[in-house]
Amino acid sequence: MKLATYRDGSRDGQLVVVSRDLQAAHYATGIAARLQQVLDDWNFLAPQLQDLYDTLNNGKARNAFPFDPAQCLAPLPRAYQWVDGSAYLNHVELVRAARNSQVPASFYEDPLMYQGGSDDFLGPTEDARFVSEDWGIDFEAEITVVTGDVAMGATPDQALDGVRLVMLANDWSLRNLIPAELAKGFGFFQSKPATAFSPVAITPDELGEAWEGGRVHLTLQSSWNGRKVGMCEAGAEMTFHFGQLIAHVCKTRNVRAGSIVGAGTVSNKGVANAKGKMDWPKGYSCIAEKRAIETIQDGQPSTGFMRFGDTIRIEAKGKDGQSMFGAIEQTVVGPNGAVPAAAPVVAANLVIPA
Amino acid sequence: MKLATYRDGSRDGQLVVVSRDLQAAHYATGIAARLQQVLDDWNFLAPQLQDLYDTLNNGKARNAFPFDPAQCLAPLPRAYQWVDGSAYLNHVELVRAARNSQVPASFYEDPLMYQGGSDDFLGPTEDARFVSEDWGIDFEAEITVVTGDVAMGATPDQALDGVRLVMLANDWSLRNLIPAELAKGFGFFQSKPATAFSPVAITPDELGEAWEGGRVHLTLQSSWNGRKVGMCEAGAEMTFHFGQLIAHVCKTRNVRAGSIVGAGTVSNKGVANAKGKMDWPKGYSCIAEKRAIETIQDGQPSTGFMRFGDTIRIEAKGKDGQSMFGAIEQTVVGPNGAVPAAAPVVAANLVIPA
Repeated sequence: MKLATYRDGSRDGQLVVVSRDLQAAHYATGIAARLQQVLDDWNFLAPQLQDLYDTLNNGKARNAFPFDPAQCLAPLPRAYQWVDGSAYLNHVELVRAARNSQVPASFYEDPLMYQGGSDDFLGPTEDARFVSEDWGIDFEAEITVVTGDVAMGATPDQALDGVRLVMLANDWSLRNLIPAELAKGFGFFQSKPATAFSPVAITPDELGEAWEGGRVHLTLQSSWNGRKVGMCEAGAEMTFHFGQLIAHVCKTRNVRAGSIVGAGTVSNKGVANAKGKMDWPKGYSCIAEKRAIETIQDGQPSTGFMRFGDTIRIEAKGKDGQSMFGAIEQTVVGPNGAVPAAAPVVAANLVIPA
Repeated sequence: MKLATYRDGSRDGQLVVVSRDLQAAHYATGIAARLQQVLDDWNFLAPQLQDLYDTLNNGKARNAFPFDPAQCLAPLPRAYQWVDGSAYLNHVELVRAARNSQVPASFYEDPLMYQGGSDDFLGPTEDARFVSEDWGIDFEAEITVVTGDVAMGATPDQALDGVRLVMLANDWSLRNLIPAELAKGFGFFQSKPATAFSPVAITPDELGEAWEGGRVHLTLQSSWNGRKVGMCEAGAEMTFHFGQLIAHVCKTRNVRAGSIVGAGTVSNKGVANAKGKMDWPKGYSCIAEKRAIETIQDGQPSTGFMRFGDTIRIEAKGKDGQSMFGAIEQTVVGPNGAVPAAAPVVAANLVIPA
């Protein structure tokens, strides 16, 4: 089933069930008011939501209305946990290669994960507000899951059973704040502002065969200022699957229902072209990766980070071409919500080949 | 006023108002069921709780009952944010000195802070369960605050106005997991298991003159296996006050109601004794600091970390000698909740001078 949270003036919004084609929605009133409630009591409430979902898909829900992603908060507008990983080692390899540093062997055994802020998520179409363009504003297109309760010490297989929902995320990053922050030794903090999520969260069964081995085998599309810059395959090159990531989180503590676990920037390996040089035909899911590629190829990056007024769209479609989670569509704005008058343009060299 | 959360089988427990002397309590039924609700709607709900608190203190609350800290969950059993800092630079100086490393000058301007897990807190008397003693089990006695909403970019003064409640915390740490984890560059994660909090959270006005300059001027007492090992002053040597810590958190994002911000291990400077050697007469608020002192003095640590069966008690008393927040009293247990048969003993050299 597909679930979303509608804006209603409250901090947690109102839970709605959304039809498979994202055309219709129905308030879950009478079953649960908020998504966290459902996660807290999944076995009791999820079957009731599934019944409503089936009725809605059959066109028989009495109070259905057209679904509007612009009315959505994040599916969990705030959560008790948001842990993000860097599960696509290719991304780490590129970023490290750009600074002539090797990936330690242990990184292939032990996932890189950090604790993110979860008190103030952004809705899928909400502006992303930043104080300064100098901070190096970057998007990160990601796949995330929402868990049920997973006990301390769970194995990757047990942990994978704890996956309840799948969402897309835009893990906004402030690249120019990262070096000084990591140098302090305590990890990311100010460099990771509020994260945005897709309009709907979906149960893994909605993915059909695309949910396999704890990975989401879909193409994650990123469009920057209307030009497609990423068509990255999220499945095959995910080094650690979601069960492994969750098991990492619960090695020393319990993971409680409603925890969000992300896999980090989706990233695909480059391929050698006819001239024997490397190409990255699938593009990129964050600008930092594009800049790493440029640095490897040309000795320095040529693509700048995002400016006020820039837009980003992140989406994944199923085999049938239908949007699976709805699209994250955000505009970068200045401290007072301002955008410049002129429309921003992305240079042609940033765009992936058609 | 003083607030606590009673165990009721649910994830979030039941809000109770506790009398100033911690002898009596009263359910907040009719005002709010959960502490997060109060933080979400502070201006409306806090005055109603204050009325009940006044009635309770006057001995006139109709359904008052004896307050029992053993029935308490953490005041917020789960929270949307838990950020801990290292605001007592003396602690950082000692730990660095023990490994012949200098504290960078920037650390005195820019607080060290990390994002902690907040989905599964421990109650004040709950056992602390760990898989292995080899992980280097350590307590950390801390002062923390709970905030209201604080906007992105708030100044330290504005941020300080956002403090709603004060609590004690035991920020359990797994010291032997820290070096490898920090070497990965993403900060603490598995080395910071579930944190425990004091039985009650109190409004800053309860502290009277002890709440001054964004600091809590009380002595934080830590007793390990029944012997007093720390009588640390929490106020004067706190390098960054809570307004500065919260302002750090909200530099690039909003801080939402119910965020918990900690100041890290309370730590006091050593003093030269009659023989011209350094002493630390106030003891320590975590074992890692004791070991750092031993390393500076003797070239190596002699105090081991905690073992299954060990106990820790953390408390702060007011001028009148009454417990301000109630005591955190936890036992370290093995993976199945097991403790060894023989009672653990702390060597005399670990105990602070009477």
